[in-house]
Amino acid sequence: MKIAVLGTGSWGTALVKVLLDNGHQAAFWGRDPQQTEVIEKTRHNAKYLKGVELAGDLEVTSDLDSAVLGAKVIVLAVASQAIRSLLSQLNAALISEDVVFVNVSKGIELGTHQRISEIVHSFFPKHKYVVLSGPSHAEEVSAGIPTTLVSSSASRGAAELIQDVFSNESLRVYTNPDVIGVELGGALKNIIALGAGISDGLGFGDNSKAALMTRGIAEIARLGRSLGASSATFQGLSGIGDLIVTCTSLHSRNRRFGMLIGQGVPVEAALKEIDMVVEGYYTIHSAYELSQIKGVEMPITRELFRVLYEGEGARESVKRLMLRGKKHELEEAAEALKIWDLAE
Amino acid sequence: MKIAVLGTGSWGTALVKVLLDNGHQAAFWGRDPQQTEVIEKTRHNAKYLKGVELAGDLEVTSDLDSAVLGAKVIVLAVASQAIRSLLSQLNAALISEDVVFVNVSKGIELGTHQRISEIVHSFFPKHKYVVLSGPSHAEEVSAGIPTTLVSSSASRGAAELIQDVFSNESLRVYTNPDVIGVELGGALKNIIALGAGISDGLGFGDNSKAALMTRGIAEIARLGRSLGASSATFQGLSGIGDLIVTCTSLHSRNRRFGMLIGQGVPVEAALKEIDMVVEGYYTIHSAYELSQIKGVEMPITRELFRVLYEGEGARESVKRLMLRGKKHELEEAAEALKIWDLAE
Repeated sequence: MKIAVLGTGSWGTALVKVLLDNGHQAAFWGRDPQQTEVIEKTRHNAKYLKGVELAGDLEVTSDLDSAVLGAKVIVLAVASQAIRSLLSQLNAALISEDVVFVNVSKGIELGTHQRISEIVHSFFPKHKYVVLSGPSHAEEVSAGIPTTLVSSSASRGAAELIQDVFSNESLRVYTNPDVIGVELGGALKNIIALGAGISDGLGFGDNSKAALMTRGIAEIARLGRSLGASSATFQGLSGIGDLIVTCTSLHSRNRRFGMLIGQGVPVEAALKEIDMVVEGYYTIHSAYELSQIKGVEMPITRELFRVLYEGEGARESVKRLMLRGKKHELEEAAEALKIWDLAE
Repeated sequence: MKIAVLGTGSWGTALVKVLLDNGHQAAFWGRDPQQTEVIEKTRHNAKYLKGVELAGDLEVTSDLDSAVLGAKVIVLAVASQAIRSLLSQLNAALISEDVVFVNVSKGIELGTHQRISEIVHSFFPKHKYVVLSGPSHAEEVSAGIPTTLVSSSASRGAAELIQDVFSNESLRVYTNPDVIGVELGGALKNIIALGAGISDGLGFGDNSKAALMTRGIAEIARLGRSLGASSATFQGLSGIGDLIVTCTSLHSRNRRFGMLIGQGVPVEAALKEIDMVVEGYYTIHSAYELSQIKGVEMPITRELFRVLYEGEGARESVKRLMLRGKKHELEEAAEALKIWDLAE
């Protein structure tokens, strides 16, 4: 089967390697002809994924038409904010109706607040869409280290097709029908990764970070539910699983930005020092607004908003979180409350 | 209020410090009169919690009767396997019916497979019981680093009393009525911590560990549900929260033991090298037996059982886990399947 991977970053490159290893024909598209020529010649993407050989039936090209021609699956492997522009350049006449679009980026479009499925749907309303997400450093996947992913689609057939295409003995793919949950989990987890960075920057410990991650995923699930997601998805690989990987990685920009904030660096200076888009910074703004509109309680997100956009001190915010009204852990679990009503 | 803490390990010591800081009168009991005398004199437990001063209304004693006399709360802070013996030494005549027992150990009794609440209940059937658990290194709690705990009891009043007694600006306590879930989470998480150690020992990466933790907590919750727990509890502080702390700690015996196994050290030799009870080793045996009796699918626990008790290779077990039948992520979420039935 011919599969087109659009975007030559580290994750796109790792996925091309998986596809070739699994015996598929791959077309690998990048915007820059100089870069694609080098990859074509060397069979390496030295800039983004050092030391990984791309052996097999591979075409590397900077010509979008050539990449998608005859492809049965089109993998969108560019940054979230670049997906709209990429889709607008696709030649719809070359893409038959049975082609499946797969998105592997994690983000929400700035400005529109749209999920990637909504953007793809606006260009290709009749095509099936899959989001492939989960705890997956590209370097580890290309080294054959055991990794799990989630293939999520409104179409069971499309989700299972993508599960089959990528699965092998070091990559295990689970299906999940909750597209909204998988997309939101991947984007919203950056809020907590940023918060974990602040906690580290303040000199806090493992206890604090574990608490932040556990309570953080609970409040993100609360927002997700109000937007149509299933809360179980946030407890899965694309939710807490991905959050665990992000919070333990030193490479996460969100976490590094948070650490600077925790150390007392002003927001503008911290953004300048990272010098790349810190998705979590914008996601916190969107999520806070959404929580206000939807009436969803998000105490951690609210405090992060205060620190990043209202100039409050991080240490004071933590104190407020620790001392707010006493809480039941399973607020939403009516079942749990029933136990107590019987007991008292 | 007078509160007795029985057991002078690091966690007991940290809790005594919290109680004193919160203005309570504390009685601190240890078996060894020489040790309690030193703690009494120096106001330090140098052996188990270096550099932490115990300032306030404190009695340190090796006399159990004196410790519990007049106490309104009795905190059991000895190892799980020592609780039965400790309870048998308590003078019931000194303990009025309104005394609340608090257990802070995490384990299941070897042989009987009883949870700590069941053991306490067999000695003190009329008394209220609370289990206090969560992601909490003692060193961090005594240093005032922000930490969260769960206070769980069949009695709402008792859970809230213990929440009040321990809460302060660096220790936040949530209540939860699901005693079975909180107790099982604390014990069963050691299965996954041991597995995480094996993964590290095999040289696997962050992707593998995040997958193991996410899928591991899902299968533990499955077993818990069959034993009367609420699955939401496993997604909370005493479940995934505590697992996150354990899996990132280098001090966890379960994780260190797993690392040796992953590196190819035979089980007997690894047990000898750790030279202390590796609770996860026994918990895997119990959990595997329980899963067979209850008919609960626990693929990770089953493979760990094979590796530890049937001499199978860890690497082959991982391969089996990666290649078993293709799965839906939210098997139990009927809701999710409904979405797909509509879509296809």
